[in-house]
Amino acid sequence: MPIPSDGLSSTASPLQRLDHQGITTLTMGTPERFNALSEAMLEALHDALADIADDSSVRCVVIAAEGKAFCAGHDLKQMRANPDKAYYQALFTRCSDVMQAIVHLPVPVIAKVQGIATAAGCQLVASCDLAVAARSARFAVSGINVGLFCSTPAVALSRNVARKRAMEMLLTGEFVSAEQAAEWGLINRVAEDGALDEAIQELTASICAKSAVAVRTGKAMFARQLAMPLDEAYAFAGETMACNMLAEDVSEGIDAFIAKRPPHWRHR
Amino acid sequence: MPIPSDGLSSTASPLQRLDHQGITTLTMGTPERFNALSEAMLEALHDALADIADDSSVRCVVIAAEGKAFCAGHDLKQMRANPDKAYYQALFTRCSDVMQAIVHLPVPVIAKVQGIATAAGCQLVASCDLAVAARSARFAVSGINVGLFCSTPAVALSRNVARKRAMEMLLTGEFVSAEQAAEWGLINRVAEDGALDEAIQELTASICAKSAVAVRTGKAMFARQLAMPLDEAYAFAGETMACNMLAEDVSEGIDAFIAKRPPHWRHR
Amino acid sequence: MPIPSDGLSSTASPLQRLDHQGITTLTMGTPERFNALSEAMLEALHDALADIADDSSVRCVVIAAEGKAFCAGHDLKQMRANPDKAYYQALFTRCSDVMQAIVHLPVPVIAKVQGIATAAGCQLVASCDLAVAARSARFAVSGINVGLFCSTPAVALSRNVARKRAMEMLLTGEFVSAEQAAEWGLINRVAEDGALDEAIQELTASICAKSAVAVRTGKAMFARQLAMPLDEAYAFAGETMACNMLAEDVSEGIDAFIAKRPPHWRHR
Repeated sequence: MPIPSDGLSSTASPLQRLDHQGITTLTMGTPERFNALSEAMLEALHDALADIADDSSVRCVVIAAEGKAFCAGHDLKQMRANPDKAYYQALFTRCSDVMQAIVHLPVPVIAKVQGIATAAGCQLVASCDLAVAARSARFAVSGINVGLFCSTPAVALSRNVARKRAMEMLLTGEFVSAEQAAEWGLINRVAEDGALDEAIQELTASICAKSAVAVRTGKAMFARQLAMPLDEAYAFAGETMACNMLAEDVSEGIDAFIAKRPPHWRHR
Repeated sequence: MPIPSDGLSSTASPLQRLDHQGITTLTMGTPERFNALSEAMLEALHDALADIADDSSVRCVVIAAEGKAFCAGHDLKQMRANPDKAYYQALFTRCSDVMQAIVHLPVPVIAKVQGIATAAGCQLVASCDLAVAARSARFAVSGINVGLFCSTPAVALSRNVARKRAMEMLLTGEFVSAEQAAEWGLINRVAEDGALDEAIQELTASICAKSAVAVRTGKAMFARQLAMPLDEAYAFAGETMACNMLAEDVSEGIDAFIAKRPPHWRHR
Repeated sequence: MPIPSDGLSSTASPLQRLDHQGITTLTMGTPERFNALSEAMLEALHDALADIADDSSVRCVVIAAEGKAFCAGHDLKQMRANPDKAYYQALFTRCSDVMQAIVHLPVPVIAKVQGIATAAGCQLVASCDLAVAARSARFAVSGINVGLFCSTPAVALSRNVARKRAMEMLLTGEFVSAEQAAEWGLINRVAEDGALDEAIQELTASICAKSAVAVRTGKAMFARQLAMPLDEAYAFAGETMACNMLAEDVSEGIDAFIAKRPPHWRHR
């Protein structure tokens, strides 16, 4: 949760997009508000994700943040200024739409976490496909401290970590270290504080070295199959994999593997 | 599984209820039978949980046990004395009702575990929202040792720990240490043997310091959303959170947070 | 993925079955092809599992492998030689049938893993009820390296380990050590390289010491209940357990437990 701002207002987007060699980095740029998910930030994330969904040049997305915090969740001051159920419902619907847009994006999304990731900020990490955090990063679903149970963050969190751990975080509001988050499965990797960029580059380089067809196939099928019963999941995955086999990249990939040479992907 | 009693019979309840500052402690009090889930114990748990469900003064519940064991599961001698399928079916239905009453109770339930928690005793731990165990505590689903696969305990256990771990415990009947149980997510915290009371107090104090509305909101939504597909879970959680926002406690909580003072909850 | 063979062909089965005191060991015997899941291997596994399903003398199954690798997944050379969607679809269906036959087999299946378990070989490990690996064993879902996302392996893997871990393995194709696999829940136990046989024997001996009725009851109910909502799972488990109670083995088991003597199972 953000410390209230001094009422600064700007028409500049709170989110910067940078495209570099297939990697799109979305950087939340309101560090003075702990990168709170204000209406403007949610709008910017929503629009950026919609653009990326249609952009075949994007290979993977990194969600990053400026300043000492990753994201402190909803903008409490803004919420307090609009004491109206319809407003809240619309706000949480918009936020949930952004989280689900990450899940359904055609390419993998990686959270790059420094500082704190709290409430909907922790949900944002949980909603990404992968997450890397600096060793000093900390995670909490701390709405309970202001009388607001983190119900929508609970949806993402409880699908990432074992239920007693999720419940403990939700009821106590206490912080969990990056190391603990990695042991629990909320994040993939912990990087030393000075080496977070490097750890993210390692991961994005690994993904960008793969066939784009294969990566997009995987992203599209993973969450869907997980929601299905086992037999349906297998039928869907088998069909998906048979289609993937027909991509030119696979012929090249297997030929390269057999010849012990690096593959040359058509669709990088 | 309990060592058979000497046929002692008593009209006194096998379960003691103690209410103190919003914390209700239910203590299983038949240590000579390893606090087996006899018909009388299940009846007493069922009734106590039903009373608590209607008691707005309760903030959280601790399930504790007297003596050297937490709970050894069903009362094997009693079961052996009633060799009848209808009896067994009624017994397991009653036991499953108690476990589900814990899941659906309006307030969080914490297991306080010392000694052994076996078979339905282990299920009782798995069914609670949170669990703290003494370092020397041990967990097993050991029905398999007497020819009875722990089928109903498997329901709770397999929703707490990874499936291969659950299957290993169920097939081998072997004990798992408190430390291992914590690593696997079956319990939240391990306390030194002399510090179990203190660890429970820390957790109950944390929960009691929160808004009662928020805690009850969370308990009511957590298990429900977990059983839903992602989009339904988000719709439900968003609606829940919008309602939670309208509670007086949230205005106070956010104002206190912004003013950097402790909140004064209306509904403690 | 296997190194291509020299075109060796044989009518001998690529799978050896050995029955010993209730333990059926299926050993994949094409080490020169890294025990790839060729058409012949899948056919042999399918037939062996179908036979075992009807064989009441089998208490548990071990899936093992000859040579330096456990299993390198599909036979890439064979797949490359059949560039046809219908062929692929039939192949993945057959493979998925084998994996589901393991899940639905009436007795527990244990993977005994040395060397590498990659792609569908890793899926094979994930599909077993239990798994023990040598310390030097390594796991990967590496199809992504040849342009083919491991969609069907993802089905089994994502039901064994937390989703961010599954996604990392699937997107990077990187190897995970046996120790890491155990921490993540993909396997149960790590044995020193020279002690893998012994670790498997310990586990099979533990299972064979149990009542066959109880073990088969457990195997039949575990995966089914896990796919159900909580209330249905409890109704099903309660019914299952009441039936299990009527087995002669349970009377004997409880009597033996009370008398503190070893049980003598009728249905070993």
